[in-house]
Amino acid sequence: MDTISVTRAHGGTQHVVKHRSRETGTDMTFSIFLPPAAEEGAPCPVLWYLSGLTCTHANVTEKGEYRRACAELGLIFVAPDTSPRGEGVPDDPAGAYDFGLGAGFYVDATQAPFDRHYRMATYVTDELPELVASVFPIDLQRQAITGHSMGGHGALTLALRHPGHYRSVSAFAPIVAPGRVPWGQKALGGYLGQDRATWRGHDAVALIEDGARVPEILVDQGAADSFLAEQLRPDLLAEGCRAAGIPLTLRMHEGYDHSYYFISTFMDDHLRWHAERLR
Amino acid sequence: MDTISVTRAHGGTQHVVKHRSRETGTDMTFSIFLPPAAEEGAPCPVLWYLSGLTCTHANVTEKGEYRRACAELGLIFVAPDTSPRGEGVPDDPAGAYDFGLGAGFYVDATQAPFDRHYRMATYVTDELPELVASVFPIDLQRQAITGHSMGGHGALTLALRHPGHYRSVSAFAPIVAPGRVPWGQKALGGYLGQDRATWRGHDAVALIEDGARVPEILVDQGAADSFLAEQLRPDLLAEGCRAAGIPLTLRMHEGYDHSYYFISTFMDDHLRWHAERLR
Repeated sequence: MDTISVTRAHGGTQHVVKHRSRETGTDMTFSIFLPPAAEEGAPCPVLWYLSGLTCTHANVTEKGEYRRACAELGLIFVAPDTSPRGEGVPDDPAGAYDFGLGAGFYVDATQAPFDRHYRMATYVTDELPELVASVFPIDLQRQAITGHSMGGHGALTLALRHPGHYRSVSAFAPIVAPGRVPWGQKALGGYLGQDRATWRGHDAVALIEDGARVPEILVDQGAADSFLAEQLRPDLLAEGCRAAGIPLTLRMHEGYDHSYYFISTFMDDHLRWHAERLR
Repeated sequence: MDTISVTRAHGGTQHVVKHRSRETGTDMTFSIFLPPAAEEGAPCPVLWYLSGLTCTHANVTEKGEYRRACAELGLIFVAPDTSPRGEGVPDDPAGAYDFGLGAGFYVDATQAPFDRHYRMATYVTDELPELVASVFPIDLQRQAITGHSMGGHGALTLALRHPGHYRSVSAFAPIVAPGRVPWGQKALGGYLGQDRATWRGHDAVALIEDGARVPEILVDQGAADSFLAEQLRPDLLAEGCRAAGIPLTLRMHEGYDHSYYFISTFMDDHLRWHAERLR
């Protein structure tokens, strides 16, 4: 592991770290914020934040406004990258923003040429926690997960696929049913192939329909989000949760868009919600 | 005035606006956050935030973490640019970061070729408040000013030069005695010429020595700031304030650097401090 930067902030420390990943076969960069409690050596609960299309660890690290509350709550906050990067990592053939680099969709790809490097699911659920816990005082018994847009899809599907692994799951403006929307159909087709049966294991609404469960879900969504109707479809999650009896708190916010102005506004609520469930 | 963006955030609205400036003779861009109280039409107090070298309005707008507290306190927050920009605006002959574009030092230049466009002092104290008040519900009787580094220099000197104009003044890691440090000597020499007597009117410590007064000053400074000893010198401000009887709260923070991680950590304290004095 290579420390890129360590910066004092809000009484804790914001680290940016690069490491060689076993899963992706590339260098990967992530950020981790240690609250004061962690710096005193106490094992702290961790919130994994999965970012959206085109993002790296840097977007939420700079604009997420999470440090004050994490410091207060004793919460470690980790933001991984959204895909493998570097020489030899295949990208969208047309260089589009919604597939390939910056758009790993948190699955382990099965289709060549993506299957070699695009292993974001195992990277996020197994490799990264293990690595982080080997260096930082993380309590692996108290993990929670959240994310934005494509990262909200990641948070929901990883929590649904790994019962008990995360104590709580929330999302900001998530893609909830990738099998039924253009971003998701392109990504799942490209990474998993055209057999749509395999997609159901990576589609939050389909996972719920097929019996996967989490204790409850918190979702915030901007009503002025330009991706709402075509790509995000929280109505499908609401329907799925209702049918399955999963308590969903879905809050629609008049006038809010898809940006970090929206995320930073509701970040505090998510941190407090997770912290309660991680106690 | 041209609206570049309007985004809902923390219950208020973050605007980015471009306008043609009478003073600089260029287009100028600034950001303004309206708290919910202002959106309901109530005239609100305003805090002017002056940015440091190389910055535009965007740095603090993205990384400053000021919106939550401004929304709560009913404070309008305006971040101007740090210099004129555009075709025909002269820059540092060597393209250095500490003079010219992004480095206006909040003075009205008297030296050709800078005197034509570099009129940041009058822009910030006169033109911008007038313009902003013509469109947004700003209470011009309740203005406060703060800034970072070069912008801290701007906040301190403008407040000292215009008694009563600002009800309160604070700064993050300010340049306090530009006449005695390399950044300031280069800038004041370039904009005002080599007669050092003229510099004293744009040097916070010299202004205080020469009798200028403000009711009190709040300064936060990182002890691990790499510019501390050579460029910032808060010790000189402490000495000047002590001799003049100006109450100075100077807080040194172990381990903090010069970045927005430092600024965002103490932003909340500054907002609350100003809000109390603007009541």
